[in-house]
Amino acid sequence: MWQLYQFPLCPFSRKVRLLLGEKGVGYELVRESPWERRDEFMDMNPAGQTPVMVDASRGVAPLIDSMAICEFFEETVEKAAMINGTATNRAEIRRLVTWFDTHFYRDVTGPLLHERMVKRLAHRAAPDAKGLREAMKAAVGHLDYMDYLLDHRNWLGGATMSLADLAAAAQISVTDYLGGIDWKGHDQTARWYRGFKSRPSFRPLLSERMELISPPAHYDNVDF
Amino acid sequence: MWQLYQFPLCPFSRKVRLLLGEKGVGYELVRESPWERRDEFMDMNPAGQTPVMVDASRGVAPLIDSMAICEFFEETVEKAAMINGTATNRAEIRRLVTWFDTHFYRDVTGPLLHERMVKRLAHRAAPDAKGLREAMKAAVGHLDYMDYLLDHRNWLGGATMSLADLAAAAQISVTDYLGGIDWKGHDQTARWYRGFKSRPSFRPLLSERMELISPPAHYDNVDF
Repeated sequence: MWQLYQFPLCPFSRKVRLLLGEKGVGYELVRESPWERRDEFMDMNPAGQTPVMVDASRGVAPLIDSMAICEFFEETVEKAAMINGTATNRAEIRRLVTWFDTHFYRDVTGPLLHERMVKRLAHRAAPDAKGLREAMKAAVGHLDYMDYLLDHRNWLGGATMSLADLAAAAQISVTDYLGGIDWKGHDQTARWYRGFKSRPSFRPLLSERMELISPPAHYDNVDF
Repeated sequence: MWQLYQFPLCPFSRKVRLLLGEKGVGYELVRESPWERRDEFMDMNPAGQTPVMVDASRGVAPLIDSMAICEFFEETVEKAAMINGTATNRAEIRRLVTWFDTHFYRDVTGPLLHERMVKRLAHRAAPDAKGLREAMKAAVGHLDYMDYLLDHRNWLGGATMSLADLAAAAQISVTDYLGGIDWKGHDQTARWYRGFKSRPSFRPLLSERMELISPPAHYDNVDF
């Protein structure tokens, strides 16, 4: 059985979990708080980040880095291909995965997690209002870009659901949990996200809670 | 003919160029200075980063993001497979590509480029000594990790040369150009890098110069 090292608000673990859910791959969760930099975890992954996946019964090295993990399951489990289509389609899907993993995370999810979660759990400190304001402003720009993509395509990466949608839903869901999204004026993205929220792969994530931090009332409501 | 938008010290463009060189894919260079945020370039790539690859004769969308570009050519050009081996080997190669693209870049190449290149070209300002010192200190830690990997493997990602080596050589070469590496005490990595420097895919990169910035004398010497 695969073990997935993660914490409930890790957007990169959420992306992997959505993929495993769509593909029907079983796993159990192991709670890891990477900001504690636990020795055993740092030995396993020198980058010190979740997710990491381990299957002791296979006797192989751990899988590290969320994109490497997604490519691994995409290569080894045929069901529900999520990097699909022509080589050009696949390049566009991978471009968007990087966009959400890197740019959305750097501008929005990362700062929100730092202000609202890490500061509270690790330093017992209050969030900085300026940092929160900037992240929420950046979220508007990112949602505008998603609206634009969804004006031109059925799904973010093209005609069918892909890893680009899973990467985006993972970041959006953590941002929404942390109260970072004002949905007004983003009808296309809200419609796309409502569809996601009712998927069986997504339901387990929405029912989890992070200690000490409560989501807004609309967070797990499918008809928000 | 493919066109590659880049500047001589872009480590991500160098990774792509090393891959294209190994695979024997022809291309022409288009000079782009992403820190200028030229409108036409931002329209093409909202992330505002090099490399971007365009082939007008194909009538398809540009290829954006260095990893998406590498995966594209890995999928479409069989020669010189660089994400090779079993699914587990391939996951390890991709983990290390992320390591060099993200962590090495964040700790070493990115700060050095900012201090020694962007400040000079865009702001006509001098580098900050503290920033340079920290990047060079981080470089030592990264070279120690590479030494460790090369103590256990023929190449960084395993038994054969892979995209992990190309990603590492790209970051190292830019860092070395900017005077950020003290090679003393890093024999394994120095030996590995000497081998790289004599590859036909690498020679064109080593002979290029960035305006206003000169590399140290040993930079393009194969027997440094």
